[in-house]
Amino acid sequence: MTWHLYTSPRSPFVRKVMIAAHELGLADQITTQDVVTTPMTPAPELLVDNPLGMIPTLMAGERMIFDSLTILEVLNDAAGGALFPAGTRQDCLTRHAMANGMMDKAVRILDEQFRAQNGDTEAHIAGFVAAIKRGISWMEPRLTEGRFDAGDIAFCALLAYLDMRFPKFLWLADAPVAARWYADISTRPCVADTAFQTPPFV
Amino acid sequence: MTWHLYTSPRSPFVRKVMIAAHELGLADQITTQDVVTTPMTPAPELLVDNPLGMIPTLMAGERMIFDSLTILEVLNDAAGGALFPAGTRQDCLTRHAMANGMMDKAVRILDEQFRAQNGDTEAHIAGFVAAIKRGISWMEPRLTEGRFDAGDIAFCALLAYLDMRFPKFLWLADAPVAARWYADISTRPCVADTAFQTPPFV
Repeated sequence: MTWHLYTSPRSPFVRKVMIAAHELGLADQITTQDVVTTPMTPAPELLVDNPLGMIPTLMAGERMIFDSLTILEVLNDAAGGALFPAGTRQDCLTRHAMANGMMDKAVRILDEQFRAQNGDTEAHIAGFVAAIKRGISWMEPRLTEGRFDAGDIAFCALLAYLDMRFPKFLWLADAPVAARWYADISTRPCVADTAFQTPPFV
Repeated sequence: MTWHLYTSPRSPFVRKVMIAAHELGLADQITTQDVVTTPMTPAPELLVDNPLGMIPTLMAGERMIFDSLTILEVLNDAAGGALFPAGTRQDCLTRHAMANGMMDKAVRILDEQFRAQNGDTEAHIAGFVAAIKRGISWMEPRLTEGRFDAGDIAFCALLAYLDMRFPKFLWLADAPVAARWYADISTRPCVADTAFQTPPFV
């Protein structure tokens, strides 16, 4: 297995992966490549198979793997590491979520500062919309009838959310496979029973 | 084990958890409670033990568990479910990350729209800063000498990032336990070898 990691020199999420790689003794086996990627202009290298254009992204052979937590688990498994101790896994994941959430907020402070300078709210929205559309296209060939795992549940909840919040964008008009899959999955009791409340919207 | 889930009627992350709970046959065992929580005004119910104030948050007995992926795994384990099939786990987690990333961007579109109306960039930044400070305080009693799991790696990378990007805020002045832990952990080769590049900052 060859490993190639797309990185950015000042990303806390990349740093997390790099610390883990070193701790696990895998750092020498991973080539790295810095890319410049933002919500408005994602790096073309990433768009090949990660339409959100986020770093870190790991090429494991021919496969692109993300996000940083998934990469941590993949590296830990490959090394037989102990970064997710079975006995304290729940506690470990909750602490990880707390740290990761703080990272997200820290990165957004920077983003807010740039935005205040540039007044580019519209550009931000356009970047998010484009990322979502690319994400749906990415998901389409990966949908499988009959399977209903955590990835499927997350995608189903996303489509339901878009349907409720942004119906005017007609997300599924250009995504016939996802539209069919969503129609099918929506008949499952677990999806129907948890439907979002309808207007008034807040 | 009693389960109590803090929810919001239109959160895609909550919906994801609710779909999973229904699919796993656990929905009847989970009480839910809607709360109103934003980056600027987190819900007081959550601040008890989730200083980021994000939903969904699960009370499992006396413990607060988050984020949505951690909750999914906890419920799946409790039910002996198949939401994370061992044979396709890596693929499942990558698809989950893609869907979750799209959710994040979708929610941020709304946030951008509110912000454009309100011009509250400063309030956003203050909200993020406050959340991070609360997060560090939350983490302090959970730090353990000698342990170095995925949660610790994430926290370490966060502190390094804050150190680099926002040194003027002196995050650790009010957090002596975290400061000591960070000084100690920073001597690990895996942390030292992956240090962030120093200025010029971009």
